[in-house]
Amino acid sequence: MPLPQTMTLIEITQPGGPEVLQPRKEALPSAAPGEVLIRVHAAGVNRPDVIQRTGKYPMKPGMSPIPGLEVAGEVVAIGTGVNEFIVGDRVCALTNGGGYAQFCVAPASQALPIPDGMDWIHAAAVPETFFTVWANLFEMGGASKGQRALIHGGTSGIGTTALMLCREFGVKAFATAGSEEKCAAIRQLGAEAINYRDQDFVQVIQDKTAGKGVNVILDIMGGSYLNQNIAALGMDGRLVMLGFLGGAKANEVDLMAILGKRATITGSLMRSRTREEKASIAEQLREYVWPVLAAGRCVPMIDKVFALAEASQAHARMEAGDHIGKIVLQVD
Amino acid sequence: MPLPQTMTLIEITQPGGPEVLQPRKEALPSAAPGEVLIRVHAAGVNRPDVIQRTGKYPMKPGMSPIPGLEVAGEVVAIGTGVNEFIVGDRVCALTNGGGYAQFCVAPASQALPIPDGMDWIHAAAVPETFFTVWANLFEMGGASKGQRALIHGGTSGIGTTALMLCREFGVKAFATAGSEEKCAAIRQLGAEAINYRDQDFVQVIQDKTAGKGVNVILDIMGGSYLNQNIAALGMDGRLVMLGFLGGAKANEVDLMAILGKRATITGSLMRSRTREEKASIAEQLREYVWPVLAAGRCVPMIDKVFALAEASQAHARMEAGDHIGKIVLQVD
Repeated sequence: MPLPQTMTLIEITQPGGPEVLQPRKEALPSAAPGEVLIRVHAAGVNRPDVIQRTGKYPMKPGMSPIPGLEVAGEVVAIGTGVNEFIVGDRVCALTNGGGYAQFCVAPASQALPIPDGMDWIHAAAVPETFFTVWANLFEMGGASKGQRALIHGGTSGIGTTALMLCREFGVKAFATAGSEEKCAAIRQLGAEAINYRDQDFVQVIQDKTAGKGVNVILDIMGGSYLNQNIAALGMDGRLVMLGFLGGAKANEVDLMAILGKRATITGSLMRSRTREEKASIAEQLREYVWPVLAAGRCVPMIDKVFALAEASQAHARMEAGDHIGKIVLQVD
Repeated sequence: MPLPQTMTLIEITQPGGPEVLQPRKEALPSAAPGEVLIRVHAAGVNRPDVIQRTGKYPMKPGMSPIPGLEVAGEVVAIGTGVNEFIVGDRVCALTNGGGYAQFCVAPASQALPIPDGMDWIHAAAVPETFFTVWANLFEMGGASKGQRALIHGGTSGIGTTALMLCREFGVKAFATAGSEEKCAAIRQLGAEAINYRDQDFVQVIQDKTAGKGVNVILDIMGGSYLNQNIAALGMDGRLVMLGFLGGAKANEVDLMAILGKRATITGSLMRSRTREEKASIAEQLREYVWPVLAAGRCVPMIDKVFALAEASQAHARMEAGDHIGKIVLQVD
């Protein structure tokens, strides 16, 4: 099937609410050296897309202004120097933006074969959260068998992925959420649920760990939770921040508590990592996590699927905060 | 020479100013299993002693109320199970308190032979700062050859030790201080001096590193410097906090900057480390740093020596902040 001349993509017409996401026709991108061109069948929706839409994401030179950090589809062209894939391969990929479109390029080193038996929708829900959780919870956070982890926002895409991988790799997980329905979903993933609306998560962690605290925390709240997170850590505990739904500034931070338990406060953004760093994470995912996906022991949790043209509804759903699992755009 | 029945020590009669340090007579301590009893010839004075005297140090059960975290002297008795030393050995040791005294016990695993040719005064100035700098700048901070480090308080005991070890291990060092005299001392140790009274250290670091920032910061200021420290770090930079002369609470902390450069904020207290952890640091010092001391390539910088009975004057000097290098008590 020959490639069309133009495609539909979703652009951010100006910083603002979900309504600023609008379809536009444009020429297809072409695969630069080391890249693959993918006919997108499904694209994941992520929190950074929402922040980018509001104009608050720290965009750097070279980042695509078109939203969309992950896609699943088939390879329809390859750039020079690409040996990993051939035209026709079914892949999912962490993109450098541009995923809300019928065609998207990605570095071949950030693409992985779709695990056997997985459909486009589920495959599109994999890259961003699995790259993020692997790099932050396991690499930076050092979570390992026998340790204890606290995952804030346990029913988000990141949260559900983190809980599944904790279960798979022998990490005892606690997770916070704000409704009984979400807590039930957390328990189904094998973790201990904490409803932050009527429980003090620091107290629950202290009680359930005999005062030892957790080894690692994956946080999306930032400022509003910082002191409580430090309080929930055990000796040599590590707090890894991914987002700031509770504010990007922290006040009255208890530095003595950091010293006293030799805590580590850190965090990262997936999008600003170099191509080499993303390739390294992809290699580790292929080695340690892909067999788990192929065996069906981790199935990405899908909240809701929207058509590409309904991207603004997808964003509105994410901002409402009622979703459990991933929100995905179906493109074909 | 038989041991006396009693000895003189310096006690903290109540939380307060330097004048609360008073001599008292007491029975000698005895060496428990794994410990050595040391006839103290010199004892180092450290910032935690001053904080302990004011009642603000987070004391834990089992910590000696008598100040003094490091001594040099001769072994006069050994506890059961001690194979590393015999009576008569010249040692310097990181103690668990009790160093401001004529006799002091320490775990044998925290004692090291005095490097050839080093006198009691210099040897007493070694343990606390060398254990601290090794554990925080090199272990936790990961400073290594070819990297860049920023040392705040470059003329303190910690500061001068850090600068000497940076020079020895190929780390390019910057250091802050508040007077021209102190800046000159920093330059003599081979580091780039920044006078914080008339220079913005973040700007100097940015200018001198072509905007790349430093890989690691050793900080004693805490709250007042936190955002500036984060700004001075490069990608994957590590801030290790040791003290809070500028406040133990931090406000308006820029969490997005932590994520953007994947910074790590951490810190530790030497005193609260376990015996095993201190033993491990001692082993590394013996392997990597002792040869440097024995070769005379690092000579601890001594600010001033006081008699044991003048401990309160020694504390007053440290609190005045004019010292360059270590303050030491001569005990015999």
